[in-house]
Amino acid sequence: MESPDSPNVAVEIEKGPIGVFDSGIGGLTVVAALQQLLPAEQIFYIGDTARVPYGGKSRRTIERYSVEIAGLLLAEQAKLIVVACNTASALAVPRLKQLFNLPVQGVIDPGAAAAVRSTRNGRIGVIGTRATIASHAYEQAIHALAPDARVFAEPCPVLVPLIEEAWFEDAITDQVLRRYLDPLLTEGIDTLVLGCTHYPLLREAISRAAGEAVTLVDSAHNCALAVNEILKSQSLAAPERQLGSLQVALTDASEGFLRVAEEALELEIGDIQLRAVQAAG
Amino acid sequence: MESPDSPNVAVEIEKGPIGVFDSGIGGLTVVAALQQLLPAEQIFYIGDTARVPYGGKSRRTIERYSVEIAGLLLAEQAKLIVVACNTASALAVPRLKQLFNLPVQGVIDPGAAAAVRSTRNGRIGVIGTRATIASHAYEQAIHALAPDARVFAEPCPVLVPLIEEAWFEDAITDQVLRRYLDPLLTEGIDTLVLGCTHYPLLREAISRAAGEAVTLVDSAHNCALAVNEILKSQSLAAPERQLGSLQVALTDASEGFLRVAEEALELEIGDIQLRAVQAAG
Repeated sequence: MESPDSPNVAVEIEKGPIGVFDSGIGGLTVVAALQQLLPAEQIFYIGDTARVPYGGKSRRTIERYSVEIAGLLLAEQAKLIVVACNTASALAVPRLKQLFNLPVQGVIDPGAAAAVRSTRNGRIGVIGTRATIASHAYEQAIHALAPDARVFAEPCPVLVPLIEEAWFEDAITDQVLRRYLDPLLTEGIDTLVLGCTHYPLLREAISRAAGEAVTLVDSAHNCALAVNEILKSQSLAAPERQLGSLQVALTDASEGFLRVAEEALELEIGDIQLRAVQAAG
Repeated sequence: MESPDSPNVAVEIEKGPIGVFDSGIGGLTVVAALQQLLPAEQIFYIGDTARVPYGGKSRRTIERYSVEIAGLLLAEQAKLIVVACNTASALAVPRLKQLFNLPVQGVIDPGAAAAVRSTRNGRIGVIGTRATIASHAYEQAIHALAPDARVFAEPCPVLVPLIEEAWFEDAITDQVLRRYLDPLLTEGIDTLVLGCTHYPLLREAISRAAGEAVTLVDSAHNCALAVNEILKSQSLAAPERQLGSLQVALTDASEGFLRVAEEALELEIGDIQLRAVQAAG
């Protein structure tokens, strides 16, 4: 029988969930990728829907919001923080790593690394929100690995609302995609990074518009692979016999797009918890 | 010669600008309507771009943000506050009227009144963002004036991003409009309220999609008419010989859509001022 005094911190940590946060609902695509790869893991997701979107706000504000949400995940005993938001990944991950003594994984580095592995001709396209494209975060991450790669970036602000309308298989969506992708295809890209956590929901339509010659790099899937590496290398993985679970909390009561994402991603989300954050009053 | 002790508060107030605020840039359509109707007026506009959008946030938060921004307009000696934002008009105008001892004009009541005046068959359509439609503010304002009117409301979340892309005359926009308006046209509406301050920028395309039989009610234009009434009845109008002016301040440095709106609305916006607000850190 175990002594009540024996140090079992490692065991405690192993039992904690993977903490995932996003400014809103889009980060659930990362949750779906995590569940597919790591079915034994518990996941605690927080969407900061009271302050969505982070894009367009200043670095200081995004750092403050991210630190606050990550703190809520620590309160849930998270063993690892996944920043499932491109804007927060671009701007707040260094600050989170500085402040918190646990692994922090964003979505940009894994996506950039996968793009560099995938490309044959060194011409990589990136699509994302205006804020993500303006941050040049993917370009910088790609150039850190492959200084000679050519990166062609296109902001696609109409895609998120189309996805939130669930117009996944839709003539309008196909036309919007052709308009956004044509300039990238003209540049001869052979790899396209889906640089927004909403976009995997549109993967099939994007694939049709980009054509067979272009490999899609899904940052949600590649982020899940990176998380798996951390869990293995730091012995944080849940026991394989364990049955995983998912808990979802939002910072504002509106559920709107949540149920669209739940259905499209085939997630099982039960009751939604509510968490208060400062600036939402 | 006037005594230096004579009370000249009324004269001072007359010199102040019309203060206009919106959660972002869309309220500039109200500014354009004000300039067209009242070319002698000075206008001070603040867009709360650090916290845009208000839609989807709680009443308490929207009240707090609105009070803070209206306070910034008071600091600019505003003689009247125009709430050029449908969400803030729906949720914060009563609180502003309670707190501030000067006229406060929102966009919803004038739009509702114009719709009631316009309709012949009592069947009124309303389009707006998800937050505005979910607030039922137009329905309530219309029913207060015409209890028997039938109101058919449709949230159109894809329209704002299309407008921010400046896809005004565009086959994609036409298709999106047809999809949103068809259910309203099937209900036999003869009047359609443009219940979002962005939408006047899309007036021609909306008019095409709605057909000649439907009268469009532009809440920006009707809000300007209501402001004109207040200025006249309270003797607050600027002297007619005065040349009007426009100053614009934002709460976040990103200007993105501002320049699209400036061009489309033929506004003359010079340097943008920056104003700090609490929750933007």
